[in-house]
Amino acid sequence: MKEGDHVVPIFNGECGDCIYCKREKTNMCERSGVNPFKTVMVSDGKSRFSTLEDGKPIFHFLNTSTFSEYTVLESACVVKVDPAAPLKKMTLLSCGVSTGVGAAWNTADVKAGSSVAIFGLGAVGLAVAEGARSRGASKIIGVDINPNKFIKGRAMGITDTINPRDQEKPVHEIIREMTGGGVDYSFECAGNLDVLREAFLSSHKGWGLTVVLGIHPTPRMLPLHPMELFDGRIIIASVFGGFKGKTQLPHFAQQCMKGVVNLDEFITHELPFEKINDAFQLLIDGRSLRCLLHF
Amino acid sequence: MKEGDHVVPIFNGECGDCIYCKREKTNMCERSGVNPFKTVMVSDGKSRFSTLEDGKPIFHFLNTSTFSEYTVLESACVVKVDPAAPLKKMTLLSCGVSTGVGAAWNTADVKAGSSVAIFGLGAVGLAVAEGARSRGASKIIGVDINPNKFIKGRAMGITDTINPRDQEKPVHEIIREMTGGGVDYSFECAGNLDVLREAFLSSHKGWGLTVVLGIHPTPRMLPLHPMELFDGRIIIASVFGGFKGKTQLPHFAQQCMKGVVNLDEFITHELPFEKINDAFQLLIDGRSLRCLLHF
Ligand SMILES: NC(=O)c1ccc[n+]([C@@H]2O[C@H](COP(=O)([O-])OP(=O)(O)OC[C@H]3O[C@@H](n4cnc5c(N)ncnc54)[C@H](O)[C@@H]3O)[C@@H](O)[C@H]2O)c1
Ligand SMILES: NC(=O)c1ccc[n+]([C@@H]2O[C@H](COP(=O)([O-])OP(=O)(O)OC[C@H]3O[C@@H](n4cnc5c(N)ncnc54)[C@H](O)[C@@H]3O)[C@@H](O)[C@H]2O)c1
Ligand SMILES: [Zn+2]
Ligand SMILES: [Zn+2]
Repeated sequence: MKEGDHVVPIFNGECGDCIYCKREKTNMCERSGVNPFKTVMVSDGKSRFSTLEDGKPIFHFLNTSTFSEYTVLESACVVKVDPAAPLKKMTLLSCGVSTGVGAAWNTADVKAGSSVAIFGLGAVGLAVAEGARSRGASKIIGVDINPNKFIKGRAMGITDTINPRDQEKPVHEIIREMTGGGVDYSFECAGNLDVLREAFLSSHKGWGLTVVLGIHPTPRMLPLHPMELFDGRIIIASVFGGFKGKTQLPHFAQQCMKGVVNLDEFITHELPFEKINDAFQLLIDGRSLRCLLHF
Repeated sequence: MKEGDHVVPIFNGECGDCIYCKREKTNMCERSGVNPFKTVMVSDGKSRFSTLEDGKPIFHFLNTSTFSEYTVLESACVVKVDPAAPLKKMTLLSCGVSTGVGAAWNTADVKAGSSVAIFGLGAVGLAVAEGARSRGASKIIGVDINPNKFIKGRAMGITDTINPRDQEKPVHEIIREMTGGGVDYSFECAGNLDVLREAFLSSHKGWGLTVVLGIHPTPRMLPLHPMELFDGRIIIASVFGGFKGKTQLPHFAQQCMKGVVNLDEFITHELPFEKINDAFQLLIDGRSLRCLLHF
């Protein structure tokens, strides 16, 4: 790294040196992996931020601490990208877009001609749609309780939409009817366990794969019965889309520049940093996907 | 099929014609798959057995109805094997041995040099050990509350044993210590959800695979939290070891004849048919693995 490098901060670091980093099929990292309770640097257990007035420590957030003009990150969490790549769009690779596209590419390995159902069409779910579309999936069903999401969804490859609130039957029954028994892949991107169960049951017996992307901050356990696994459906989670950040993101950035994945639709608003709370409100109201904050 | 053929009956049939049978990676079968509630023939919905006295129907059991001298099966549930194969041993391929060995070979695809933990050392668990041993696993940990099982276990490739009742710590902690973080594959062959949770937690973060073989006739749901899937452990079930019966069992029978898998240790008792209840008692007492009944 040197001054002037163009970099993308990532919450799921890659130290390159731990047992996970050395293994091909996981993007966990023992040293700089996701740990929401870690608010200090791994190297010395200290924070790099403090208040101007009395020097009290301000703690780090999710390895990146990016809601500020300057930040300090571990090198495992900084990815150098092609300086020709537009930084404005590269910020999308820090989380949502990499997570969704990677879930389709790396975790599920979506095949051409297959069928997909996506539950929750925020930035993550729509990025799954982009990933599935770019792999040639022939049917991409988008499910959301906010019908405004379907407009963007169609631009990103979604072929069919379902609003559960307009339906009398459970969504999985409708999807099974639409697809002759269920989709090949379903993705849960809403962070809701009842939705997760619908996603699981929407996949086809025998080979259906459900990828959990949503974060579930609930004491409830998985709403699945052990014998339901015997129907041959598989459930698996995906962190950061299975991407090994430092190793694979530079190439992913190039693919985005080439248009394999279309980033243009993801930034819906741009606001000055002082309006950060308005930006959150837009997100909460379901009116924005990602909002770019200017300093 | 013709009179005199040597056949093995299977509970998980293969009709060869349904969507599942035509698919490579599943051994489900829509027509003759496992359905414990199906007590009649698929073709006409009738039973083929009746009482001698008053002709009342006697129903079928698990597609095979093999606790009798003669039986009637759908052709999807009958596998023709090499007439040179000893029928006495071939009966083991009808369920336990195919299930356990197949779980290691087909479902988990155990790699040479890997580590394995098996929870429950009945015929199924010991067959997993045989399957893992034949694949070259370097560490095979057997877990059972009946220490008598460890004797057979060692003959079948188990390298380390744990009796949970002798331990103060949970078994997964001991296994993590023994293996530097957890095994590559764990198998639940006890039919107990608390054991299933231990098996899951015994596998390594990032890539550990847990295969559920035990049948869980309980209203309890999976004892796993959704966020636990984010540690990269995978859980999957296996029916009949993933074998497509009619297609793959003849070759498996030949491998057994060649000694790739050692069947000799599995038949622990032989009794006349009239003593079938004694045979069950031996099984319940944990004194037998499989008992051969003679007519
Ligand atoms: N696994 C990872 O690495 C990773 C990374 C980033 C985000 N996430 C998680 O992914 C999830 C999605 O993130 P996002 O930024 O797209 O969030 P978001 O809030 O923008 O999108 C969620 C979408 O789900 C829809 N939704 C809510 N309830 C629903 C229901 N009952 N049925 C159908 N749709 C419903 C909402 O209308 C919204 O469109 C969150 O839980 C987030 O924490 C996970
Ligand atoms: N998935 C399939 O296709 C399939 C096929 C056959 C059998 N099964 C199921 O597999 C399981 C095993 O079958 P089996 O014939 O080997 O049964 P078994 O009863 O002979 O063996 C079970 C073993 O588990 C041990 N055990 C019980 N409680 C335990 C605990 N708390 N901790 C550790 N060990 C414990 C017992 O001592 C015994 O040795 C059963 O649930 C059976 O229904 C599944
Ligand atoms: Zn690492
Ligand atoms: Zn079939």
